[in-house]
Amino acid sequence: MTWLDLPADTGFGLENLPYGVFSPADGRRRVGVAIGEWVLDAGAVAAATGAPFAHLLAGPVLNPLLAAGRPAWQQVRRALVEWLTEPAFADLVRPHLQPRTGVRLHLPIDVGDYVDFYASEHHATNVGRIFRPDSDPLTPNWKHLPIGYHGRAGSVVVSGTPIVRPTGQRKGPADPAPVFGPSVRLDIEAEVGFVIGAGSALGTSIPVTDFADHVFGVFLLNDWSARDIQAWEYVPLGPFLGKSFATSVSPWIVPLDALHAARVAPPARVPQPLPYLRDAEDWGLDLAIEVRLNGHRLACLPFATMYWTPAQMLAHLTVNGAPTRPGDIYASGTVSGPERDQRGSLLELSWGGTQPLTLPDGATRTFLEDGDEVTICATAPGPGASRIGFGEVSGTILPAERRAS
Amino acid sequence: MTWLDLPADTGFGLENLPYGVFSPADGRRRVGVAIGEWVLDAGAVAAATGAPFAHLLAGPVLNPLLAAGRPAWQQVRRALVEWLTEPAFADLVRPHLQPRTGVRLHLPIDVGDYVDFYASEHHATNVGRIFRPDSDPLTPNWKHLPIGYHGRAGSVVVSGTPIVRPTGQRKGPADPAPVFGPSVRLDIEAEVGFVIGAGSALGTSIPVTDFADHVFGVFLLNDWSARDIQAWEYVPLGPFLGKSFATSVSPWIVPLDALHAARVAPPARVPQPLPYLRDAEDWGLDLAIEVRLNGHRLACLPFATMYWTPAQMLAHLTVNGAPTRPGDIYASGTVSGPERDQRGSLLELSWGGTQPLTLPDGATRTFLEDGDEVTICATAPGPGASRIGFGEVSGTILPAERRAS
Repeated sequence: MTWLDLPADTGFGLENLPYGVFSPADGRRRVGVAIGEWVLDAGAVAAATGAPFAHLLAGPVLNPLLAAGRPAWQQVRRALVEWLTEPAFADLVRPHLQPRTGVRLHLPIDVGDYVDFYASEHHATNVGRIFRPDSDPLTPNWKHLPIGYHGRAGSVVVSGTPIVRPTGQRKGPADPAPVFGPSVRLDIEAEVGFVIGAGSALGTSIPVTDFADHVFGVFLLNDWSARDIQAWEYVPLGPFLGKSFATSVSPWIVPLDALHAARVAPPARVPQPLPYLRDAEDWGLDLAIEVRLNGHRLACLPFATMYWTPAQMLAHLTVNGAPTRPGDIYASGTVSGPERDQRGSLLELSWGGTQPLTLPDGATRTFLEDGDEVTICATAPGPGASRIGFGEVSGTILPAERRAS
Repeated sequence: MTWLDLPADTGFGLENLPYGVFSPADGRRRVGVAIGEWVLDAGAVAAATGAPFAHLLAGPVLNPLLAAGRPAWQQVRRALVEWLTEPAFADLVRPHLQPRTGVRLHLPIDVGDYVDFYASEHHATNVGRIFRPDSDPLTPNWKHLPIGYHGRAGSVVVSGTPIVRPTGQRKGPADPAPVFGPSVRLDIEAEVGFVIGAGSALGTSIPVTDFADHVFGVFLLNDWSARDIQAWEYVPLGPFLGKSFATSVSPWIVPLDALHAARVAPPARVPQPLPYLRDAEDWGLDLAIEVRLNGHRLACLPFATMYWTPAQMLAHLTVNGAPTRPGDIYASGTVSGPERDQRGSLLELSWGGTQPLTLPDGATRTFLEDGDEVTICATAPGPGASRIGFGEVSGTILPAERRAS
């Protein structure tokens, strides 16, 4: 039990303790931990208590903590629990708590590489049906490997960053030549992201069973997508400008250690994957994700339905010997469940723009309009009756930059 | 005229002055400049002369210099020329010169994002003919935009780093299911890379005319490729593990200011590109690139034949508002000319493995074997009769890591 007053239904209880980076007003960036409605200045408490790991929490990003490896992650987590439960620490800790509403949250990590997967069978099937209605919706490789590609790390931004509508080339089937202008099919992709803590050397790989030694934590991600730009550019080398203009992430990294109760068996995989993708202890995560547009709930996404597990994605990413570094991230790809209201993109929700959505206020949407605000949030089961909150990732669409042609 | 003795045919004359990062024996990494057979400890000279830009050359990477922007690049370049030409500086500078053979060269930049283009019409046409013999070799978008995708920044390594043969899934047309093992179609891609100096903000773009304000310099790159892994994985999201195991780069960054005499008119582009890809002062670069396998010349590649210019690639990369950072790199894609011996990959030189190459020592090759050493080097015209050398990027193939399945 903590000596702090926490709301009964907080997603930021003692069981969670997610890490972020905050600054009070315009002050220095500090490593913080969310607890109830508060943010704990974890670096300040570590310094005040003379903790041997204080340098890992000195900021301005989480990368030193990430690089320190799992024993250090567990040591810091034990200390956080002690600080927040032992009454003897209350007087020391209390001055380092401040309301979360009063601080600014920053991108918590220096992102190394960013890989985006395509691990939802329902999403991949929907996309295949929309774009290739006459052929098998899944490509022949889909059930043999977690398909992925590299995104742009430099355009990963923290929740709340305004998203300028991207400009570029597009060419519809009826257009004689490509046209240039702001995207008219701007979309979201609701995803779950994973951050690498301990890296791996060039020429080595990370077996599925070593997942928890390498992955520090989990967050939410909106991989904004310009479907018209993407459709014209993506053959043969994959998505590029249709995605690289912005990817928003939630500010709180939920430690993997907070998600034991959220582990669930993944769906049956047929055919059986190759041995490097097999794990007797295979597990997915039971996150319930919600997508809101201008405050209206658009969809609820069951992450437990993902075909490929986080451990399989990482084993695949490194099976060729690609190195990983602290701060590398990878994401699941759009999370979609089997039902119509469980789809994680407007592309699927509006079925390629052919079935406009009607919002409760009477507005209709196929794709995003300027001024639209999209928010993605999630929770997962914690120990007992508790819930683990992921906070949210949100962004508002600004009009395209004006420019010549 | 420099007070140093330089070989008449050096590619590292006063006209060049490329930057790198070196360490003597196991010492600290320092910013160096190649001159003749020497490396100049530029950071040490800057400190000794009290130069106001000394902090930009303090190492251990070039990123501070990159971030400082073009006026600073020009200021440092003027100082380098002064140090190496004014006899009054000779006594001060001489102790900071050491033979290049005695130092270790390192990856000179902290790489941010890495984008690989596909800008050679001859290469794209060859690849199209090999893989899709019954259809148009170029995809419909090819002449409208420089096709590109993001590669893995974390696996960019400096010349000389051994390359472990990657392992992964492949599936030939006759295989009933994918098989797992070391790549049997390991290839090279001889390319030219560009490093971003001054970045650009999220939501803004870099016009073709602003190229020289943002790009610091030019280097060589070998984008090792496992064609069998790539062929099975790349639909629909593009290359991933077939490329992400390693990308080798040359250690010396040739400043853009050293390449004025190398500018050439690009080929005619039909149809005319969209306005954001047009520039009245359009120029490519006249690099002569040589590819060697175990010391035998395999091919000579005329970079002047590239369809898209470096400025067009950067304008396209950022037209959607994607930000750039000091240390971001992008590469041209495989450089191939119109002739058979001007092809920059074994895929093309052996025509998809159907026409083995015979080397002067009687050995034959379709793709790379363990122990093979590949070296790519290049020069470009400098002022007068001088040549600008790029040094080389080389790598030797090590056997695949042994592992279960």
